[in-house]
Amino acid sequence: MFIINNKILKKMKNSISILYLLKNIDKFLNKIVSINGWVRNKRTSNIGITFISIYDGSSFNDIQIISNNNLKNYKEITNITTGYSLNVIGLLIKSIGKFQSYEIKATEINIIGKINDPKSYPISKKKHSLEFLRKVEHLRIRTKLFSSISRIRSFVFNSINNFMNKNNFIWVPTSIITCYNTEGNNQLFEVHLKDDLKKKFFGKDTFLTVSGQLNLESYACGLSKVYTFGPAFRAENSNTRKHLSEFWMLEVEIAFNNLDDIILLSELLIKNVYNLLLDNYIDDIVFIHRKNNLKIDYLNNIINNNFNILDYSDAIKIINKSKFNNIKWGLDISSDNEKYLLDYFNNIPVVIKNFPKNIKPFYMKVNNDEITVSSMDILLPNVGEVIGGSEREDNYEILNERLMNCFGDDLSNYQWYSDLRKYGSVPHSGFGLGFERLLLSITGMNNIRDISPFPKTPNNINS
Amino acid sequence: MFIINNKILKKMKNSISILYLLKNIDKFLNKIVSINGWVRNKRTSNIGITFISIYDGSSFNDIQIISNNNLKNYKEITNITTGYSLNVIGLLIKSIGKFQSYEIKATEINIIGKINDPKSYPISKKKHSLEFLRKVEHLRIRTKLFSSISRIRSFVFNSINNFMNKNNFIWVPTSIITCYNTEGNNQLFEVHLKDDLKKKFFGKDTFLTVSGQLNLESYACGLSKVYTFGPAFRAENSNTRKHLSEFWMLEVEIAFNNLDDIILLSELLIKNVYNLLLDNYIDDIVFIHRKNNLKIDYLNNIINNNFNILDYSDAIKIINKSKFNNIKWGLDISSDNEKYLLDYFNNIPVVIKNFPKNIKPFYMKVNNDEITVSSMDILLPNVGEVIGGSEREDNYEILNERLMNCFGDDLSNYQWYSDLRKYGSVPHSGFGLGFERLLLSITGMNNIRDISPFPKTPNNINS
Repeated sequence: MFIINNKILKKMKNSISILYLLKNIDKFLNKIVSINGWVRNKRTSNIGITFISIYDGSSFNDIQIISNNNLKNYKEITNITTGYSLNVIGLLIKSIGKFQSYEIKATEINIIGKINDPKSYPISKKKHSLEFLRKVEHLRIRTKLFSSISRIRSFVFNSINNFMNKNNFIWVPTSIITCYNTEGNNQLFEVHLKDDLKKKFFGKDTFLTVSGQLNLESYACGLSKVYTFGPAFRAENSNTRKHLSEFWMLEVEIAFNNLDDIILLSELLIKNVYNLLLDNYIDDIVFIHRKNNLKIDYLNNIINNNFNILDYSDAIKIINKSKFNNIKWGLDISSDNEKYLLDYFNNIPVVIKNFPKNIKPFYMKVNNDEITVSSMDILLPNVGEVIGGSEREDNYEILNERLMNCFGDDLSNYQWYSDLRKYGSVPHSGFGLGFERLLLSITGMNNIRDISPFPKTPNNINS
Repeated sequence: MFIINNKILKKMKNSISILYLLKNIDKFLNKIVSINGWVRNKRTSNIGITFISIYDGSSFNDIQIISNNNLKNYKEITNITTGYSLNVIGLLIKSIGKFQSYEIKATEINIIGKINDPKSYPISKKKHSLEFLRKVEHLRIRTKLFSSISRIRSFVFNSINNFMNKNNFIWVPTSIITCYNTEGNNQLFEVHLKDDLKKKFFGKDTFLTVSGQLNLESYACGLSKVYTFGPAFRAENSNTRKHLSEFWMLEVEIAFNNLDDIILLSELLIKNVYNLLLDNYIDDIVFIHRKNNLKIDYLNNIINNNFNILDYSDAIKIINKSKFNNIKWGLDISSDNEKYLLDYFNNIPVVIKNFPKNIKPFYMKVNNDEITVSSMDILLPNVGEVIGGSEREDNYEILNERLMNCFGDDLSNYQWYSDLRKYGSVPHSGFGLGFERLLLSITGMNNIRDISPFPKTPNNINS
């Protein structure tokens, strides 16, 4: 692995990220360093010193710059406001202040980008509501909160990819534009050529994928262990705190494996990611958990306990024990009921197995009782269902019957899928994990629109 | 990092992947093992022994099963054909044959999935053309070639993610559905609600992204070093060997960095990935290079030489030195000319800098000469352009003028983008890398439809 920092460093006249600086403090302490970044805030004392806090997004930490009135552009420096971009050259020293460990005594402050009208700058020093920040989604990354969310999101994405890889799963980019419908419902976006809605560019009606699962199954029947990690789309008119029209999904498919295997894999995956997150991003996690009033052991509570695994029927019994709930066997478990179950199990994740066949899609394998399917949902605190999975129907005749029930007699777009059961069929299982929902659970944020960098919801698209 | 193999193993009655078996040969040699997989081919001798070659996709290597006529279902075993899925239990031994190092002496062969009509099975033993295999894209993963391509693709994808991460780039999922047009041309797919083409689900006209760059720039102006890695779409009516309507793209954006920095980063990224690939997937690489008649040092030739960096004007001069070419300054460099340049430089990658302003998009920074932009294309052997990048116009007034030239007076969908130059603007640079094109270059395959697992081209969508 090449690490570019050293080479880039020379080219950039030793400009380094705050992360690199703080991680290599022994190398840089009491030396002249060069930093690029944006002004978080600024305070000028009446004895001719200006304190500027700089961030560059690389690290949770900002760094304080001390600027003396002997700098040649000191007057200009006193006029700096939040959001200016700067290049700072100066001596890195231990701080005597109590809010930071290190600071830079500037020998040079070069103003790179100004804010001409500070009053109009949406990301000023004052506290903004999350609702307001959603309206300036191109600028909210400049706040400490969205910077933390972004670092956590990136780390979790990469931890999941690494976990899948270390365990020899092969990544497959499944179709985004499709001509079939995995879930068999109507919540689809259609894809057309711009300015020519009648012309079929691909020769067929085409849609945005709701799931890469069917594609993935074909690859599982040749590579055994596969996954995909990409965007999926739902045209539901749902304006809840946990629905997006465009979201990312991890999908996993394993040949020769059953429901217990994918439950175990899901639990290990989640615990692995949480462990790594606490090891590597504790500052961001503590900050965001404090903001969201979560208990200090919120993630450890999940890591250190076994997931609760129970049958749908038992979940219904537990729900119906409560005074406020009454749910008939056969119905779906609502968000409120999911929350009740999580409370009941002290916010340790809950795995619900063997859902009624009638509320689940065509591809799930029917159990011997003929009224349930070999499926599972995993509920995580603060959000509810994050993972859904099942054994897949591997019998050619049964699958075709279920496809016909779902799509009628015209199965031309699904023949390739049933082929997988015609030629060397195998028992196989898989699951999908809603990436933004996982991040909702990890961070304790309330609304999924603050987890997606460019959220799309009904009547709402900014960029 | 949890490694799941051991836990899963117990659950699966010690069924292990061929990869895991061969990597841990000391542990399993002369022991009873259990393998799941599909039949590559079968040969029955007239002395009552059947040899079956099994693959599971985990490894380049198949494993040979020796089945004796004392197995209770031996007659059934002799009827097995290519594509059957099996569970095999037997003794792992050193092979005395010259084609494999290890083999399994079966004590039990369980037939899991049959091929009822072997003649109709599209992936039979015989050699198939790539054109034929494209028609059965759901089954071609069962061939040795597509299995190799898939492992390489997955490894390269993850190596790129790891490289970006180790160098502290933050991954950002940019918009797939957008309301703006990065490239300023008309090759867009439009997104509608199914069955209601008039209703604007998002309240605006929406398209599939041609590039995540503009989104990414907003995050670079808060996180400094960012990347995105996801699908992009072009509605060009191009049926060439290197165009797809849906493809994956790595896009990188770095604040406070210039053209030389992104050229350096690109070169290091490519060499890093190639190095890791040769270290980890040499069997697949040798196999695929031999198939494509590439020289044995094809990738090492790239790793061990400096990329050739030259100005567009110099590239034109070189092209015009040849007898067969004549290209005017100001025109784009064609595929044939790209090939000529690569040949000229002995298939060491070529970086062409400072293209004419008139053939490049609005966001590229104009050089002092006012007729070129600070941009670069990187050409790789067997495909030509794989990477394109530039410094971005960071001046508010100049950018707005160029946006107006491109989109007219209605810039409402681009105001957020020019905002980035209004508030604390920074010099920044970035590039996009076409993932499937990179894989074309790595593998030496001829057609991009064999690199994408589910290729989409005009009039062509299967699943």
